[in-house]
Amino acid sequence: MADEIPETSVSGDWDELYYGTFYWHGIPTLLGCPLADDPAEADIALVGLPWAHNPTERGQYLAPRMIRHRSGALAGRWHREFGVNPFELARVRDCGDVTVRNLGNPDEGVWEVARFYERLDAAGCLPLTIGGDHACTYPVLRAIAGPNSRRKAPLGLIHFDSHSDAYGPYLGITHNAGNWARLGVEEGLLDPARVVQVGLNGPLFPESHHFAAEAGFRLLPLLEIEEAGIPAAVAEIRRVAGDGPAYLTFDVDVLTLGEAPGVANPAAGGLTTNEVFRFLRGLRGLDIVGADVVCYIPQHDPAQITAINICAIMHHLVTLLAETVARMKC
Amino acid sequence: MADEIPETSVSGDWDELYYGTFYWHGIPTLLGCPLADDPAEADIALVGLPWAHNPTERGQYLAPRMIRHRSGALAGRWHREFGVNPFELARVRDCGDVTVRNLGNPDEGVWEVARFYERLDAAGCLPLTIGGDHACTYPVLRAIAGPNSRRKAPLGLIHFDSHSDAYGPYLGITHNAGNWARLGVEEGLLDPARVVQVGLNGPLFPESHHFAAEAGFRLLPLLEIEEAGIPAAVAEIRRVAGDGPAYLTFDVDVLTLGEAPGVANPAAGGLTTNEVFRFLRGLRGLDIVGADVVCYIPQHDPAQITAINICAIMHHLVTLLAETVARMKC
Amino acid sequence: MADEIPETSVSGDWDELYYGTFYWHGIPTLLGCPLADDPAEADIALVGLPWAHNPTERGQYLAPRMIRHRSGALAGRWHREFGVNPFELARVRDCGDVTVRNLGNPDEGVWEVARFYERLDAAGCLPLTIGGDHACTYPVLRAIAGPNSRRKAPLGLIHFDSHSDAYGPYLGITHNAGNWARLGVEEGLLDPARVVQVGLNGPLFPESHHFAAEAGFRLLPLLEIEEAGIPAAVAEIRRVAGDGPAYLTFDVDVLTLGEAPGVANPAAGGLTTNEVFRFLRGLRGLDIVGADVVCYIPQHDPAQITAINICAIMHHLVTLLAETVARMKC
Amino acid sequence: MADEIPETSVSGDWDELYYGTFYWHGIPTLLGCPLADDPAEADIALVGLPWAHNPTERGQYLAPRMIRHRSGALAGRWHREFGVNPFELARVRDCGDVTVRNLGNPDEGVWEVARFYERLDAAGCLPLTIGGDHACTYPVLRAIAGPNSRRKAPLGLIHFDSHSDAYGPYLGITHNAGNWARLGVEEGLLDPARVVQVGLNGPLFPESHHFAAEAGFRLLPLLEIEEAGIPAAVAEIRRVAGDGPAYLTFDVDVLTLGEAPGVANPAAGGLTTNEVFRFLRGLRGLDIVGADVVCYIPQHDPAQITAINICAIMHHLVTLLAETVARMKC
Amino acid sequence: MADEIPETSVSGDWDELYYGTFYWHGIPTLLGCPLADDPAEADIALVGLPWAHNPTERGQYLAPRMIRHRSGALAGRWHREFGVNPFELARVRDCGDVTVRNLGNPDEGVWEVARFYERLDAAGCLPLTIGGDHACTYPVLRAIAGPNSRRKAPLGLIHFDSHSDAYGPYLGITHNAGNWARLGVEEGLLDPARVVQVGLNGPLFPESHHFAAEAGFRLLPLLEIEEAGIPAAVAEIRRVAGDGPAYLTFDVDVLTLGEAPGVANPAAGGLTTNEVFRFLRGLRGLDIVGADVVCYIPQHDPAQITAINICAIMHHLVTLLAETVARMKC
Amino acid sequence: MADEIPETSVSGDWDELYYGTFYWHGIPTLLGCPLADDPAEADIALVGLPWAHNPTERGQYLAPRMIRHRSGALAGRWHREFGVNPFELARVRDCGDVTVRNLGNPDEGVWEVARFYERLDAAGCLPLTIGGDHACTYPVLRAIAGPNSRRKAPLGLIHFDSHSDAYGPYLGITHNAGNWARLGVEEGLLDPARVVQVGLNGPLFPESHHFAAEAGFRLLPLLEIEEAGIPAAVAEIRRVAGDGPAYLTFDVDVLTLGEAPGVANPAAGGLTTNEVFRFLRGLRGLDIVGADVVCYIPQHDPAQITAINICAIMHHLVTLLAETVARMKC
Repeated sequence: MADEIPETSVSGDWDELYYGTFYWHGIPTLLGCPLADDPAEADIALVGLPWAHNPTERGQYLAPRMIRHRSGALAGRWHREFGVNPFELARVRDCGDVTVRNLGNPDEGVWEVARFYERLDAAGCLPLTIGGDHACTYPVLRAIAGPNSRRKAPLGLIHFDSHSDAYGPYLGITHNAGNWARLGVEEGLLDPARVVQVGLNGPLFPESHHFAAEAGFRLLPLLEIEEAGIPAAVAEIRRVAGDGPAYLTFDVDVLTLGEAPGVANPAAGGLTTNEVFRFLRGLRGLDIVGADVVCYIPQHDPAQITAINICAIMHHLVTLLAETVARMKC
Repeated sequence: MADEIPETSVSGDWDELYYGTFYWHGIPTLLGCPLADDPAEADIALVGLPWAHNPTERGQYLAPRMIRHRSGALAGRWHREFGVNPFELARVRDCGDVTVRNLGNPDEGVWEVARFYERLDAAGCLPLTIGGDHACTYPVLRAIAGPNSRRKAPLGLIHFDSHSDAYGPYLGITHNAGNWARLGVEEGLLDPARVVQVGLNGPLFPESHHFAAEAGFRLLPLLEIEEAGIPAAVAEIRRVAGDGPAYLTFDVDVLTLGEAPGVANPAAGGLTTNEVFRFLRGLRGLDIVGADVVCYIPQHDPAQITAINICAIMHHLVTLLAETVARMKC
Repeated sequence: MADEIPETSVSGDWDELYYGTFYWHGIPTLLGCPLADDPAEADIALVGLPWAHNPTERGQYLAPRMIRHRSGALAGRWHREFGVNPFELARVRDCGDVTVRNLGNPDEGVWEVARFYERLDAAGCLPLTIGGDHACTYPVLRAIAGPNSRRKAPLGLIHFDSHSDAYGPYLGITHNAGNWARLGVEEGLLDPARVVQVGLNGPLFPESHHFAAEAGFRLLPLLEIEEAGIPAAVAEIRRVAGDGPAYLTFDVDVLTLGEAPGVANPAAGGLTTNEVFRFLRGLRGLDIVGADVVCYIPQHDPAQITAINICAIMHHLVTLLAETVARMKC
Repeated sequence: MADEIPETSVSGDWDELYYGTFYWHGIPTLLGCPLADDPAEADIALVGLPWAHNPTERGQYLAPRMIRHRSGALAGRWHREFGVNPFELARVRDCGDVTVRNLGNPDEGVWEVARFYERLDAAGCLPLTIGGDHACTYPVLRAIAGPNSRRKAPLGLIHFDSHSDAYGPYLGITHNAGNWARLGVEEGLLDPARVVQVGLNGPLFPESHHFAAEAGFRLLPLLEIEEAGIPAAVAEIRRVAGDGPAYLTFDVDVLTLGEAPGVANPAAGGLTTNEVFRFLRGLRGLDIVGADVVCYIPQHDPAQITAINICAIMHHLVTLLAETVARMKC
Repeated sequence: MADEIPETSVSGDWDELYYGTFYWHGIPTLLGCPLADDPAEADIALVGLPWAHNPTERGQYLAPRMIRHRSGALAGRWHREFGVNPFELARVRDCGDVTVRNLGNPDEGVWEVARFYERLDAAGCLPLTIGGDHACTYPVLRAIAGPNSRRKAPLGLIHFDSHSDAYGPYLGITHNAGNWARLGVEEGLLDPARVVQVGLNGPLFPESHHFAAEAGFRLLPLLEIEEAGIPAAVAEIRRVAGDGPAYLTFDVDVLTLGEAPGVANPAAGGLTTNEVFRFLRGLRGLDIVGADVVCYIPQHDPAQITAINICAIMHHLVTLLAETVARMKC
Repeated sequence: MADEIPETSVSGDWDELYYGTFYWHGIPTLLGCPLADDPAEADIALVGLPWAHNPTERGQYLAPRMIRHRSGALAGRWHREFGVNPFELARVRDCGDVTVRNLGNPDEGVWEVARFYERLDAAGCLPLTIGGDHACTYPVLRAIAGPNSRRKAPLGLIHFDSHSDAYGPYLGITHNAGNWARLGVEEGLLDPARVVQVGLNGPLFPESHHFAAEAGFRLLPLLEIEEAGIPAAVAEIRRVAGDGPAYLTFDVDVLTLGEAPGVANPAAGGLTTNEVFRFLRGLRGLDIVGADVVCYIPQHDPAQITAINICAIMHHLVTLLAETVARMKC
């Protein structure tokens, strides 16, 4: 196996590499990548989106800050299980945090967020976001599949979550954390026949469930995954998502609480990190064109294990995106 | 699957439902249920029992308070995996906390606790208790199977725990947290041939082990469960418990520490929450007539994941009890 | 001094008293007082107001829940330093939490809160509230001094805080946590000549400062208190507040962080609890007709010392209010 | 001032000294002193007493363990403010923890504790104890002033506490944490005319207060200390305690919560550590023949500041005791 | 099964046993064993090694202190799954902590540590160490296989870890936490053909990976264990380690973060405690002649579950070593 | 007083100001100031120095990261008590963190740090550093007063600390956290007659004390400050420091633990934040040409109050430095 790792796979010597990613020195950038003001410098744009307006539990706006802090510790650039170095396959840049001025009114603030991502889309970047609550996903979808996007066509969706997030308005707010998937369908940003929701096990709200079922989402509850096994579940995700471009959104609450205490809407039971990594490895070769990780709350993460697990999930996601970039370049 | 959830399964509209269970508004009741002073209003009586006198580790008297706090967040009333709404099958009420005045002397205080449960038994309620330490189980058994009960006959017992709790007196105290199972047998409250202890893996004390083995308890250590698999273990529990009425007691320390750090007598290793849910789903149809969850310590639960897991376990238990009620009503 | 405490000052025997206030048994009520649905049963209405919409730091909606939890531990009913038992001077009742349905839009939700307090005002209660953020004060003032109130006349204000809270709208929201004092003046709920702000030491925002200064508020910054001494500062408060009815609002951030880590907008330095108690003792005899404690965040209060200090401050405030009630009854 | 510190005041060189007290190396002994099985080796016996049976809040049995852990960090042997090295004035030894087998029944367990201290008294040691709850003080008084003691005569008492601890039996237990002072008087272990209670400010229980007042204790509430000033309060303590032998007991709850969050019965307000050190310096020359520090709960001390303050208080107390030893030797 | 546990398997009666191991009474010794100054009293020497000089994350020097504190709670001496009482098979003693004076320069301090273990080796003890960072393993290997050892021959190595620890010097320090395995090979302390590294899944550093692969280590990454299953992995470990004497080193970071948050170099994913116990049970009969557990950081272990799991792992390791001792005695 | 605050004192409107300093959005810079690669852009250079090599307690290298995180929340630019806006008086820039490669050997790493500051000194900046342990002060002094500096002359020193830091080498390391003051004198970087050490109250080490006393430092122990009062102590500091250029170093452990739990070498008792602010206000007009804050440990600061207090202290220090800049510009 040693032969498979080229001596040159890591640019620079080890000390330099390691220093560059010491997690406590210097400005904390996402995955320890260089800052880039101009998205044209990036193939993959890492973005912090400290946006949250869900009154169930708060604090998700601090997530990008904590992930900036921890993800500098991603000392190893090479991805052991994928056998590639994503940072060599693509230009990965930290494009900073979105500054949201209309926090008080998410139905207005959402457009400011969307504009940020439209600028990235126009430059040809694939976005990888650390939220924020799950309302963060809508403006990204809008920017990469909506009327101002290059693509202007619906995407498939691979959605890891305990909840199906198709509830409709809530407390008078349309752009809440549980309505983005429904909005994505209603506005033609998502192709419902190519939506698969993985790991559902939280409390079931009938409205959301009925919308998802009637729209044609493929629901893969935790119960079905347990019974069918992960290989079968992976195959089903690949079948539903198909060959077209797809977005991947990862709500941290799909993890079991022992592995991810710091989540906004905790649900007992869930996937382990080992299982999540098996799922993500199973998605290689799909045309994943954007991704996010949402609903992390640092205040409920006393030993920061949720943060560390998120950094590893982002390492997997950046590798999936980098392989998409590499295919695009061919 | 959407068809299987009747539109009317949730009483009231979603906003109302959700508001009724916001976990931070108003008086915190168990599982967000209405308070009832009169047990005649209840089919299932939720009870907090802040009683603990085990000198190994303390603080279990705070458990009902924390579970009151968190369990209001049980927003989803419908039980996804069981496919029923237990709160429609039975009248579930919060009957408050037992006030124990003889905390200083558990061998006296136990009778005060028993009287509380005798009042529930006389009214025909099935009790679901959040303890307190494991000494809490004895007075409940006494009240529902002992000389003042309606039943006056021994029960089967499904006992999830790392320990076998048949030690005898300890430090001069008979009603300690490790002696209730032995007392239950000695006083004819339990039928030892219908006792099954699930998940044993803590340190083995010979006295307790010998009593359990000689009394005829079916011991299902964690090691045997790992080797036989959960389906076989479930079948064995069903065989031992049989068709007669049975009590279910759940000591949180049977969970692995990653899922349940907040326990009184921590033992390394154990069941995951996913595994516990598989066990509990496997018990449907048994005649379970009472249940409790014990040995939770909020002070050692920094992100409250133990509390959240307990709320989900109680959701399972209230569903098992509600199905018993539904069968009784037929 | 023993002679001054009548044997009969505490109703019931000690055991009963103490048990009644064990802080971990039973439904947690504010200061361990009986619940009352009907405000006519109360002279002083204790209210939890879990209302917060300030995007600086969140979590203040959990404050009433924590204060319910801790304040049952207020074992001693007699107030040692005042030499009275406020619970004998007045009927003190827990009137529950305000349920706020328009959390998503505070400019609408505020009226729902105000209606709750108008019902108390109509019944003749004096309100003592645990917030919530400082936006909580406006609807109370509106209810007890505004067009629907019995009084329909401006009040004096004794305002402990690090900030002057007269900023104007913020992020498009009028009823934010920093604008209630300005609104109170603009709507004639407060008499600016009888407003005194005590302990100011946080960052100074010119807009707020200019409004306060021009409106005629008496500003007592921490610096001036340090130089003049507490007796002089107390005298100045009494001079400004005068003989008319006055409201007292206490933002926990006026305390030094060592005594109150769990605050929403922390400012370094501040008053000690000993000093606050001296201030509050100095206000005896003023016509205080309502009070609140706001801006407590339980998540940043790891050893709960802020909560314990708040319970003691509320003991002082309920005593001041009970003496007002006693004077009214004469 | 440098002249006043003899070069030889510290035995051994600095490196050795410092290493000997590195707080994380080796067996943790109290104040980093050598263990001694035989009390004849000691002039001052440091003792851990992990004994608690107060149902208000638990966990005080862990206090000696934590103070063992932290007090090895008492790197400086020389007492800066006293200008002496107590470890040169007297042989200070760690005599270990008392093993209490009757934890379940304090009215029996107390005699086992007393026997431990009688052995120390017989050997001529002065005891300095880290408790445990305040019930720990009684068996020490019994051992050094009771029928089996060398002295067989009542002592004076300097008692720092928020509470007066003269309540009588509680929950059927005589030897509870709030009755030791009353028992000490009733059994002739204390001379009530030489008892002074310093810093009282917690909730006032009439029974306890009346007993204390009628027995003739000098009560020095926090309020009186604030008004009179510390020098006057020190003078009053010296006047009451007089020239005879006196015991000093320090309940950590007399400190303000900002300085001591980890206490069993927290009371808002209190003395600062600076003030406590002024008090203790003021007691030099009194004939203090034993001391204890009680009611510390490590679980509520997240940054361990209470522990660190206790170590400093014990440094003061061991210096007071060492000066007593030095006078005895003359 | 009850028959298999002889009545005499536990020396003394239960109360005595239990008291002897109450985890909060008395001097905290490793696994509650007696202290021994003279290694001749021990067959197995438990050692605390508070040594750390890895600048990635610090605080590992506090690990022995915490494990001393918790491991007294190992109430059950009998090992349930092994069916033996290791404390009867061998004389297990706490030989104290190594005092390291050259903390500032690990390349010098290492020899001081090695001398400590050489004394144990000369006395014929098998060492079981709680570190310290992973640099702790080198001086133990040096002492039991190096030029001053009785054995003077290379050992096999069973190495549980997320990392392969063959990096070379780092920041100019040879004896760093990631170089001990390389040094062991280079100095002939380890037989590379008998080295197996289990559970590798952290970031892959090419230098370390290349050295390990070229030296002939058998790498068992987590991925291979997942695919092959634990029984096959156990068989492979046995095949590689063979019949000769082997050392076992356990880096806590091989556990999944949910089970072990308190680690120095956290890696997402990993083995569960149940899986680790299966591995360790699978190693019975191998000639294991020493072991250690390293890289635990108490400060990141808020509910102490890592500590509790370590105590259980040490219970397994002491049993493996005791069986080696028993075989040697035959 | 309102008149004294010019309308134009804050550049830009309030919303913009506030947004610019939201503490959770974007790259976290020190005091929310712009980053500057080129020191020529700055009058005052804010620097993070994550450098620590003191084996007493670790983790100080994380301090700059936490202060970056919190200090963005310094919403108010205007300094209320000084009555100026330091960010208008001088160009204040965040010059980033010093990257230290020789962490393993502080006696080598120190020169790398010094070179960083020499670059600032050459550009004419006044440095304000957040450490790091107290060894951080030496390389700054070296850079601004040593052979490569513009000044090349000794400075006065105002040193807030519990310890006198003149110990000599320790564990073979010259540049340790307790030797910088001695080195500063020995190398002519400090004028011992203009050194004043304020607040000493930690354990007294004779070597350090003797050096300080003999070198002619003015020692102002806490005890003397308590007796003389703060105004007299301020006057004494001014007298010693005199008119010449002086450096100010602030070791957080001079604060009382209630206000600053997160310190490396905690000492019981100390100054309050209110008192520290009085001291710092008292130093206006002195020629302070550089400053630092050291010895903060975020891991022991659970509610982050130490961090918040440090931000306020840095606000005071940046104002003192800005007034020096303003005087220089005149």
